[in-house]
Order: sequence, then C-alpha cells, then structure tokens
Amino acid sequence: MKLRPYKKNLDYSYTLGVHPTRVLLEISDIEIVQILINSQFEKLDDVKSLVKIAKSRGVMTTVSDKAIHRLAPKENTAVIGVFKKFERALDEERSHIALVNVRNSGNLGTITRTMLAFGVKDVAIIRPAVDIFHPSVIAASVGASLKVNFEYFEFFVEYQRKYENHSIYTFFKEANTPLQNVKFNEPFTLVFGNENQGLPENIRNIGTGVSIPQTDEVESLNLAMSVGVALWEAGRK
Amino acid sequence: MKLRPYKKNLDYSYTLGVHPTRVLLEISDIEIVQILINSQFEKLDDVKSLVKIAKSRGVMTTVSDKAIHRLAPKENTAVIGVFKKFERALDEERSHIALVNVRNSGNLGTITRTMLAFGVKDVAIIRPAVDIFHPSVIAASVGASLKVNFEYFEFFVEYQRKYENHSIYTFFKEANTPLQNVKFNEPFTLVFGNENQGLPENIRNIGTGVSIPQTDEVESLNLAMSVGVALWEAGRK
Repeated sequence: MKLRPYKKNLDYSYTLGVHPTRVLLEISDIEIVQILINSQFEKLDDVKSLVKIAKSRGVMTTVSDKAIHRLAPKENTAVIGVFKKFERALDEERSHIALVNVRNSGNLGTITRTMLAFGVKDVAIIRPAVDIFHPSVIAASVGASLKVNFEYFEFFVEYQRKYENHSIYTFFKEANTPLQNVKFNEPFTLVFGNENQGLPENIRNIGTGVSIPQTDEVESLNLAMSVGVALWEAGRK
Repeated sequence: MKLRPYKKNLDYSYTLGVHPTRVLLEISDIEIVQILINSQFEKLDDVKSLVKIAKSRGVMTTVSDKAIHRLAPKENTAVIGVFKKFERALDEERSHIALVNVRNSGNLGTITRTMLAFGVKDVAIIRPAVDIFHPSVIAASVGASLKVNFEYFEFFVEYQRKYENHSIYTFFKEANTPLQNVKFNEPFTLVFGNENQGLPENIRNIGTGVSIPQTDEVESLNLAMSVGVALWEAGRK
C-alpha cells in the first residue's frame, strides 16, 4: 500500500510524532497498519521504547525518511503511526458533549483531551465540521481524540432523536441560567456552537440554556475553554 | 522609522490582523505609532471601520503592502497595528495569576484572554518565559494580552516578597487539596508551572498545594485549561 498525504476520504490516518503514536499503541481496538520511523531519531530513547511497544503488539515498524517527509507537514517528525479509521458509536447510558459545526482542529483536539481528563468519553459532532481523524486534531489532543466515542450527524435533531434519554444543556452567551446555578441531570448533553457564530438560533431553545458568566472585557471565552469549564462544573456536583 | 520584523529587543511590537488591532485601538494608555493597511483588504467593511476609529484617535494609517509582507508571517494579513511597548505593574490589592516558565505563546495568549473573561487582570511571569509582547501571544489572546497588568521576575521568591499580602495556591498534579475543596482567600495568587515540567519542586511547598482531579486517561489537562478551570472555581465562591 502506497501511503498518501492525509485526506478526509482515505480509510486510514496518521499520528504524527512520538506522543500521539504512543497513545495509539495503547488502544487495543484500533487496527494499526505500521509505524514509520525517521532514521534521524532512531536512536532516541523515546523512539526505541516506542519500537519495543510496537513489536510487543505485533505492529510492523519501518524506517523510511521518504515516507515521513511525504506524509508529515513538519520536517522533524520522529515517528508516524498509520492506522485504519474506525467507528465507535456513543454510549447511550453516559453523558455527552455535542459540538455544532466545530471548525478548528486545535479546538476539537483540546476538547477531546479535556473530556477524557474529566471523564466524559462521548462526543456528537454536527456537520459541517472538522474531521476528527485529521492528524492535526490527533496532535492537538495528544492522542486523546483516538480514545473517545464519536458520531457525526447532519442535524442536531437527528442526534437528539437517537439519544432522547439525555437532558440537553445548550451553551450561549445570552442564555438565562448562569452555569453555577444549573443542576445537571445525568445522562446530560452539553451543546456548544462553533468558534465564530456560537450556537444557531434554532438550537438555543432546546433544553436548558446556560451561560458562563464573564466580564465584557473580552468578546468571549474560546470554545475549548467554555467546554472545559462546563465539564468541570457539571462534574463537580 | 524603518519597521523591523518582531524581535524581543525592539521597543515596539505589532498586532497582526483586524481583531487584535481593534482591541489595541480601544486601549487608551498604549502609544500607537501607526496602523498599516494591506491594499488588498482596504475596501472591507471591517478595515474601513478600523481606519475610522484610528483617525478619531489621531492615529496615522498607511497603506503599505511592502511593510505588511515584511512584518507579518501570514500572506493575507489585512492590517497591522504598531505600538510602543509599555510597563503596567501588578495591582497589589487584586488577585493574580503567576506563571512559572511559561513557554508557549498560544498558552499565554489563551490564559490572558481567559483571565480577563473571569475578571483577573494581573499576571506575574517567572523567567525563562515567552515574551508577552510577541505578536503571536497577542494574536492568540485576540488582543486581551494588551489589557492585563504584567511583571517579569527572575525567581518566584522575588514575586512573593513584593506581593507578600497574597495567599499563594500552587497547582500541581500530586498536590493534596482537590480544587473543589479549596477556600480561596483574597487577594490570592494561583501559581502554575509550564507545559512540560509542571511546577518546580522548590515552589511546590509554598502556600496551599492544589490539584485538579482528573482521570488517568490523559497525562494532564493543558496549561491554559488548568488556569481557566482554577479561575472559574476561585471566582465561583
């Protein structure tokens, strides 16, 4: 198989660098095609221990500077993990995050990392939205995005119909209930709009509208930060 | 004055793009040298309204594609604000954030944006650390970094001696007190280590050690997220 630079329609994707590749190797339900090694970094302890883990998992490792340079945007990428894309549907018993039209790969990466840290493992993504398999999402999440359950939907109502047992909390600036006053009923879904437009009007009146109180010195918190603070508060009670 | 690409030792810096430049124009105690305009974007409404604000503030605007291309790393930068660097010492009556050896400009930007959103305006930075005037910090903060009070210190004890009225809370994973159990006495200082090493050992036993409870599915929250969650919790009480 001749590996090609990442595109959404490929049925495989990449972890770029040692950290996300190490996480990839920890996840037993992902089919790993191979690990590519940059000969420049072959002697590094981190890389050597990665190769050892790969071998113990029966994953092929290949030194190929040519492949690394073709596939990685950064010159100094030490290793690349190649894996088959997979499906991992949401758990209907657990609480979810829903992201409507999330566009920025750094944000989606940071959000999945923060979700895992706070014990929420399921994310619904409403299209159009960034591709959760994009290597830059995986990199920003330090591999955490490979551990979450996820499902894409064309419309929020589709999600809502499928997981109708969830209590919906929609986050937007003008909402009536300040975060610290919300009593979260589990399983819950915390719903967020995207980086520029926030939450679309037609979703705002579903469930309980929640605002995160903030000064008017800035336009808003960034998206990942809003999700993180909401997750902390919801988990606190 | 021939403007040069940003370096730490220059006595001026830049806001790259419309959003941070608009914030720059709102801040009355900053000396703005001039606003540079990219002729390609001159007719955009956002740019026209920016020019109007600049004129009403008596700030010179210049169309110069050459200067824009020399100073901005991104091709499609519409405007650049040029301003004199300034000092703005911490307010000893108010609560602070202290960042020990923060290295990543995106993190410092996101942290200042989040601080302002949650009403904390003062940041102490312990060297070695990223330069708060770097255009990429300003961009990541969407201009918020220009609004905070800040001071650099060589050692944490220097900061502590100067602001000895503050109650110190040091954040690290192994600390004894979980965040939700802390009673924050004002004015407080929330102290964080950097992205890789966390907080140095010799600072950990100063004040109250605080941990943010999280699963072991990820190595840690990212730095900006930790600061944001701590600020939310401290402000909540």
